[in-house]
Amino acid sequence: MTASGEQPMPSAGEHMHALVERLYPLCRSITGDGVRATLEIVGEYLPLRVHEVATGTQVLDWTVPQEWNIRDAYIADTAGNRVVDFAASSLHVLGYSVPVSRTMPLAELRPHLHTLPDHPNWIPYRTSYYEPEWGFCLAQATLDALADGEYEVRIDSTLTDGHLTYAEHVIPGQVPDEVIVSCHTCHPSLANDNLAGIAVATFLARALAEQTPYYTYRFIYAPGTIGAITWLARNQERIDRIKHGLVLACAGDRGRLTYKQSRRGDAEIDRVMRHVLSASQRPHRVTEFTPYGYDERQYCSPGFDLGVGSLSRTPYAGYAEYHTSADNPGFVSPEAMADTLAVCREAFAVLDRNRRYVNLSPYGEPQLGRRGLYDSLGGRSDAKQAQMAMLWVLSLSDGERSLLDVAERSGLPFDTVAVAADALRGAGLIEA
Amino acid sequence: MTASGEQPMPSAGEHMHALVERLYPLCRSITGDGVRATLEIVGEYLPLRVHEVATGTQVLDWTVPQEWNIRDAYIADTAGNRVVDFAASSLHVLGYSVPVSRTMPLAELRPHLHTLPDHPNWIPYRTSYYEPEWGFCLAQATLDALADGEYEVRIDSTLTDGHLTYAEHVIPGQVPDEVIVSCHTCHPSLANDNLAGIAVATFLARALAEQTPYYTYRFIYAPGTIGAITWLARNQERIDRIKHGLVLACAGDRGRLTYKQSRRGDAEIDRVMRHVLSASQRPHRVTEFTPYGYDERQYCSPGFDLGVGSLSRTPYAGYAEYHTSADNPGFVSPEAMADTLAVCREAFAVLDRNRRYVNLSPYGEPQLGRRGLYDSLGGRSDAKQAQMAMLWVLSLSDGERSLLDVAERSGLPFDTVAVAADALRGAGLIEA
Amino acid sequence: MTASGEQPMPSAGEHMHALVERLYPLCRSITGDGVRATLEIVGEYLPLRVHEVATGTQVLDWTVPQEWNIRDAYIADTAGNRVVDFAASSLHVLGYSVPVSRTMPLAELRPHLHTLPDHPNWIPYRTSYYEPEWGFCLAQATLDALADGEYEVRIDSTLTDGHLTYAEHVIPGQVPDEVIVSCHTCHPSLANDNLAGIAVATFLARALAEQTPYYTYRFIYAPGTIGAITWLARNQERIDRIKHGLVLACAGDRGRLTYKQSRRGDAEIDRVMRHVLSASQRPHRVTEFTPYGYDERQYCSPGFDLGVGSLSRTPYAGYAEYHTSADNPGFVSPEAMADTLAVCREAFAVLDRNRRYVNLSPYGEPQLGRRGLYDSLGGRSDAKQAQMAMLWVLSLSDGERSLLDVAERSGLPFDTVAVAADALRGAGLIEA
Repeated sequence: MTASGEQPMPSAGEHMHALVERLYPLCRSITGDGVRATLEIVGEYLPLRVHEVATGTQVLDWTVPQEWNIRDAYIADTAGNRVVDFAASSLHVLGYSVPVSRTMPLAELRPHLHTLPDHPNWIPYRTSYYEPEWGFCLAQATLDALADGEYEVRIDSTLTDGHLTYAEHVIPGQVPDEVIVSCHTCHPSLANDNLAGIAVATFLARALAEQTPYYTYRFIYAPGTIGAITWLARNQERIDRIKHGLVLACAGDRGRLTYKQSRRGDAEIDRVMRHVLSASQRPHRVTEFTPYGYDERQYCSPGFDLGVGSLSRTPYAGYAEYHTSADNPGFVSPEAMADTLAVCREAFAVLDRNRRYVNLSPYGEPQLGRRGLYDSLGGRSDAKQAQMAMLWVLSLSDGERSLLDVAERSGLPFDTVAVAADALRGAGLIEA
Repeated sequence: MTASGEQPMPSAGEHMHALVERLYPLCRSITGDGVRATLEIVGEYLPLRVHEVATGTQVLDWTVPQEWNIRDAYIADTAGNRVVDFAASSLHVLGYSVPVSRTMPLAELRPHLHTLPDHPNWIPYRTSYYEPEWGFCLAQATLDALADGEYEVRIDSTLTDGHLTYAEHVIPGQVPDEVIVSCHTCHPSLANDNLAGIAVATFLARALAEQTPYYTYRFIYAPGTIGAITWLARNQERIDRIKHGLVLACAGDRGRLTYKQSRRGDAEIDRVMRHVLSASQRPHRVTEFTPYGYDERQYCSPGFDLGVGSLSRTPYAGYAEYHTSADNPGFVSPEAMADTLAVCREAFAVLDRNRRYVNLSPYGEPQLGRRGLYDSLGGRSDAKQAQMAMLWVLSLSDGERSLLDVAERSGLPFDTVAVAADALRGAGLIEA
Repeated sequence: MTASGEQPMPSAGEHMHALVERLYPLCRSITGDGVRATLEIVGEYLPLRVHEVATGTQVLDWTVPQEWNIRDAYIADTAGNRVVDFAASSLHVLGYSVPVSRTMPLAELRPHLHTLPDHPNWIPYRTSYYEPEWGFCLAQATLDALADGEYEVRIDSTLTDGHLTYAEHVIPGQVPDEVIVSCHTCHPSLANDNLAGIAVATFLARALAEQTPYYTYRFIYAPGTIGAITWLARNQERIDRIKHGLVLACAGDRGRLTYKQSRRGDAEIDRVMRHVLSASQRPHRVTEFTPYGYDERQYCSPGFDLGVGSLSRTPYAGYAEYHTSADNPGFVSPEAMADTLAVCREAFAVLDRNRRYVNLSPYGEPQLGRRGLYDSLGGRSDAKQAQMAMLWVLSLSDGERSLLDVAERSGLPFDTVAVAADALRGAGLIEA
């Protein structure tokens, strides 16, 4: 309650957490209506262009698979009690399970049951996209409580020709060069491992749209692997426009931030993220590229080799709750998502202003005082930071080095350097 | 007293300190008769070619300013007592003060008075070259003692079309390629911050002239910033001859030596200075280039980008006495100046002999023994340093790597390497 | 004794040590019958092609010297007792001693006697190849015991036109590109400093021949310096075939392994040796190239600049026994030689398989599952090492980076990477 008696405005973190909670129950997979329902909800926050790509479409080395939809699934005992029920958690069904409707003894059922013996109360997350299979995931404790005997086993799913669904949101910039922000949409009820990334991406897009950025920003919501491959296949002829990019995943847990560098390792996004994380003095970790993880695998595949890094908090498989029912909305926090969002905004604020200039007056120092750019009273023992920034920009602007290079070489804040560059450009001393 | 009863010969350090003391009282500025008187005294040690450049001359982005001269200046109380008197210290007047001759109350005078509250007995050094202004610098203690009331304020200065004055001394070498040594001449009664540099440069020139060096050495005595800019403007067509250079400043305080690298950071002078300072095992510091400091700012401006570093003891603004009356002849010591001089001589002894050779017998080792270059009794467990130096020179002389590279790679003293190279050249095994 | 009562098979280390003991008594030098006898014994283990190069042959900057042979040598007292006798140790005679047969007082003999005062019971090793000289090497204790008086001094040697002898053994590979393994054969009764190298080289050749390697391996047994120079002179036109090489010396003492890098420092053999030594977690040392040591001096001379490193245990002159009679068969151990051999085998196993591939499906990840290369059940939190290796090979195979680069970048064992590359090549996803 504020002094006026009104409710305080919810913070961005609270808004993002609310979105996570809303999306949580939906049963997403790499295709199907769960993805569509997810994009519809995100579309309430942000206009999305939804793409549907038909089953069987060739995408790079892959083929768009059949569409999977599921209406109900359960294991019931002879009394008709549902001992495992899809309605309670979308994780209960092995993703892409083929339909089944049988009665069988527990012994026959067992090979189809997946548990986590080390975490007896958690449900694991498992899929079988490319091998026809059916199965259930359940808590070890649930399994232990099952009596021998017959069970009714039913998965009311369909695997039919249909579509793969992904969506884009574009913020037009001053130039057609693009920055992509990509998050995966294929995980069912998992909060950190995809919903937090979706939420941060969505609120990042809203923030970037507040004023026209330099770059054009393209947000991609797509199923992991096959979705990114589909997007790349359909955008191959315009891939040269993609100058930078960021994959968001595991964006909401309470761990410190982790930036995984692009395959290039020295792409501009890598340098910007390292600079911003380091300058912000947040605890963080920067890791080398590995060809495993999220869709940076595809964007950084050697044929494309895009300057795309990945921002997470605790990376995939780095926390016990990963790919289990314990990755629920309680596992992610408004504060952590707000922090991830803030770093993204800081990084894009640097990236978006990181120009290269050429000093037009490179022989000796230009007389800054005559142009009103320099403190006129000499003999002072300290030079002001703003003046130092101007001298550094003049010294290093050779058309090769960027303002970020100037900031890192000089130790001055990027903002100070960018403001100095604006002043020098205004005075005609440098040009882009 | 020596055993013979004669006075011992003064050391180079004592000679340099005597020169500092002689130059100290003169009121130097970026133009004017104080500079001319300074150069006249230096000319007693070294033949100088003095250049006069007219007011209004365009020099790169700058214009040579009016010439400033001052005869007298004081603040007197109503009893006629000079409470601040230019005759006592050239620092008392704001550099480039326009003339003034008025009586005014203390309150009106105050904005024109500059003090150092943290050092109440020191007079600060201030200038206003490019903004018409007048003022006095004085001890805070003096200011505190002034009673309210009327004061006679008089600065008997002139700011008129005239000239900017700088001087050169050249030591012809075996090749027209040049090394420049530059020091600033524009500071009034400040001992470390310009006089020590002038003194070391002067005695360095005398030492270098003892035998014909390889390079041509050019010593430049010029006012800071505008002087270096003027020199660069007038030498633009021959700037390609300048291969290396050193700016000397703050060369006499008791702190450890500091070498500030050129903008390139890997210029030969940078490598030589790092090598000599490190090999000499003196306490020292090597710093990166910054576009602030002394005239390396101009020589290293990106259009010229010369291989010019800067040698100081404690760098500008790194000591409390900087730009105050406490930077007096007592602040600099004969020993410190002698040490700076010694390092300069060592560095130029390396630079001057740092040739690149090509091994003319690169297939297998040449038989050194046949040429009398190798110890003939084999089977010994240690190779002599001189022989190792020959093997290293043969191994690395590819026309790209210099003798300094050989010294650094091998860990052998530069002298040993240079002697080995002479022997190999004498035997026809390498050529320049 | 094994359970069956049979003797256990001698290990490779024991075989090598037996070879050292057999070769030890022979009086080797840079020419002569001692070298021939040595090669004859090695020839029992390995077919050798022996080369004889006539005295006076010009080899690069050198000339093949006269051939030296010695039958007997001694110092006898007046009673006829041999106080120093070549028959007891080949070290007793200064290598390449000219013949002498005289009686002389001890005082006249003394300048021809070499001892090690710091190790009074050891005989030093000395030679005078290129300066006509004669002399004896003996224990200081022996010298101390000599009474003044006359001694009969006799060296029954000949220095005549003859030949320099070296040998080669070649293991043909799948390609004509060669790897050379070189050891020196010129030291008389010294165990670590040449016999251990000869033994390891010999057993390495036997091991490599067990299956057809990729490279052609050439083993060179030659006297130090003049032998390598002779080999280089006679192989100059085919030197481009030599892609990698290793000099073996001091290969049998009990110290840790030392790899001395080639002059290039980043040759493939350098990277392989560093990788293998580091991955094996053996205590070891990697040192920079120096133009002193064994025949890597010649192979790495700048005109050839071959990728040839040198593997030792304790390097030359790094142990007190170096070049003395204490470097005897007891100074080297079967275990140490077996360890040196094992590292060579590991290194060549890497070198021989270290191919460069090109990813033929570089746009996005190829669908490994479809090709049976990937675990089909998704959602698991750990990727198997073999799968990671495939992803790394795909990510990095750009035709520039080798499998060793992949192993080092990924942190995976080289073997795992090589197996993954084989699988991917089998599936048509990469090509050499």
